[in-house]
Amino acid sequence: MPSPRFLALDWGTTNLRAWVVADDGTAGERHDFALGVSKLAQGEAARRFREEVRPALNAETLPAVLCGMVGSNLGWAQVPYLDAPAGLADLAASLFRIEGETPAVAIAPGLRAVRPDGGPDVMRGEEIQVLGWIALDPARAKGEHVVCHPGTHAKWVLVRDGRIERFVTAMTGELFDVLRKNSVLGGLEGPDDDGAFDAGVDAAGDGAALASRLFTARAKVVGGGGMAPDQVKPYLSGLLIGAEVAATPALLGAPADAPLALLGDSTLCARYARAFARRGLQASVSDGDQAALAGLNALFDKGMDR
Amino acid sequence: MPSPRFLALDWGTTNLRAWVVADDGTAGERHDFALGVSKLAQGEAARRFREEVRPALNAETLPAVLCGMVGSNLGWAQVPYLDAPAGLADLAASLFRIEGETPAVAIAPGLRAVRPDGGPDVMRGEEIQVLGWIALDPARAKGEHVVCHPGTHAKWVLVRDGRIERFVTAMTGELFDVLRKNSVLGGLEGPDDDGAFDAGVDAAGDGAALASRLFTARAKVVGGGGMAPDQVKPYLSGLLIGAEVAATPALLGAPADAPLALLGDSTLCARYARAFARRGLQASVSDGDQAALAGLNALFDKGMDR
Repeated sequence: MPSPRFLALDWGTTNLRAWVVADDGTAGERHDFALGVSKLAQGEAARRFREEVRPALNAETLPAVLCGMVGSNLGWAQVPYLDAPAGLADLAASLFRIEGETPAVAIAPGLRAVRPDGGPDVMRGEEIQVLGWIALDPARAKGEHVVCHPGTHAKWVLVRDGRIERFVTAMTGELFDVLRKNSVLGGLEGPDDDGAFDAGVDAAGDGAALASRLFTARAKVVGGGGMAPDQVKPYLSGLLIGAEVAATPALLGAPADAPLALLGDSTLCARYARAFARRGLQASVSDGDQAALAGLNALFDKGMDR
Repeated sequence: MPSPRFLALDWGTTNLRAWVVADDGTAGERHDFALGVSKLAQGEAARRFREEVRPALNAETLPAVLCGMVGSNLGWAQVPYLDAPAGLADLAASLFRIEGETPAVAIAPGLRAVRPDGGPDVMRGEEIQVLGWIALDPARAKGEHVVCHPGTHAKWVLVRDGRIERFVTAMTGELFDVLRKNSVLGGLEGPDDDGAFDAGVDAAGDGAALASRLFTARAKVVGGGGMAPDQVKPYLSGLLIGAEVAATPALLGAPADAPLALLGDSTLCARYARAFARRGLQASVSDGDQAALAGLNALFDKGMDR
């Protein structure tokens, strides 16, 4: 019977997700804690980890590998970004050990890349999923792939020969949230409505003039455009995702023939897959948890257990 | 000495602006009331007008012409939209008289247009400014002009032969507000910073992939991009206005050689003029109040005083 080997944590802005990983590489069920770094007081991460996470998992004696916003100024320790291009070996060589912590705790650095349109872009956490996704299939380590990781801040990643070459962040999820909660596009909740979602994807056009296209979600209700108030939500979702899908690959400088992959939360990935299909694009869909575990497993192998 | 002839009101979502207009067409100073329709209880507009606005202006005996959101379901009476193309004569013929109100009160209808990208667009209030702007100069009544009226919901209007042909609304101002107040792009207030504003205009590129370009406002701060936290606000303003200016004229289907005019609040117009210039575009700038008065004057002449 396999015995526990280490603790794997994806510790993000809103949630902490943890697994006990056995010495044969398999993991038990995922444990979620409402300990996202945005909810923690300054300097509180270490104590909450020792007093709440370790006991809940019977993991007081295991070393731990952490990734995500826990490595930011809001988290446990500010770990400098590593510059892309970077692969798993680069991240493993840059694991940040918490000094004096026993059992050992190491935090993976985030990544920084230069955007084709200038300036930096950054991520903390998604890089582990992308690199884990590559590790799960040797075919993904060859040539170029475009990975879309949807979320509050969606990440579009160009993978080249098994490493993260560069990436671009789209604030689509956050835009959706703030517009629903705080703008004239808020209002009635409705059921899922694929027709309204598809209409939104179509209304995104080439992805330009987003602020102008957004207003159609209002005008179609008040101007006799035949949209019911409870269709605004799925229409807005389709419009924002459609605009992202239409324009972000070009902004990333992705080769047109690179295979597209969706990686992350299954519900969100299904929404994006629908928008891709509506635009005549095909994408594979992969589970984010499985990829995160593969990435943290590889990091522990290469970076801590040596 | 001229004597008072009528009361002119631009009664919008957040403010009510009123002038007493004399029989020689001149107006006294503008009076502002914090009685925007979004702040009124249902059915309250009539009473507040009689009990607060009329007495404050010594205008208990004058007829009144109103435009703006006061003609919506939030206002005094819901006045149906008039369909574009439409000119001042069309609006004057469709003035909505409040039944039984003495002295007479009439509300101008809003306009509805078909967008080149499909579906309706609507406005209530800006059409009076645009048509007043045309009335102020005979040259504006000939050929095609593009009028940009910046604001919470910016209006881009194609004027053809003295009438409003069609228009497109850009939610730029509202996007700026909700992102500043409710997103990761909020934070420190800073002084005006033309350099940061210009950098934002440049970062807007061709106006596509806005959700992705927005994240540069964050990444340039946390990823070593050389932006100070208090530069995010002017940069974000430049980025949003830049994206609007880059892509909305094409969405409107405006002829490339049509003269561009900015019309409205002088501070906002100056921001837009800076973004236009940065992109190599020239625009005239006109005062929104003067245009609103010209429009309301013409409406009273053609629609009420007959």
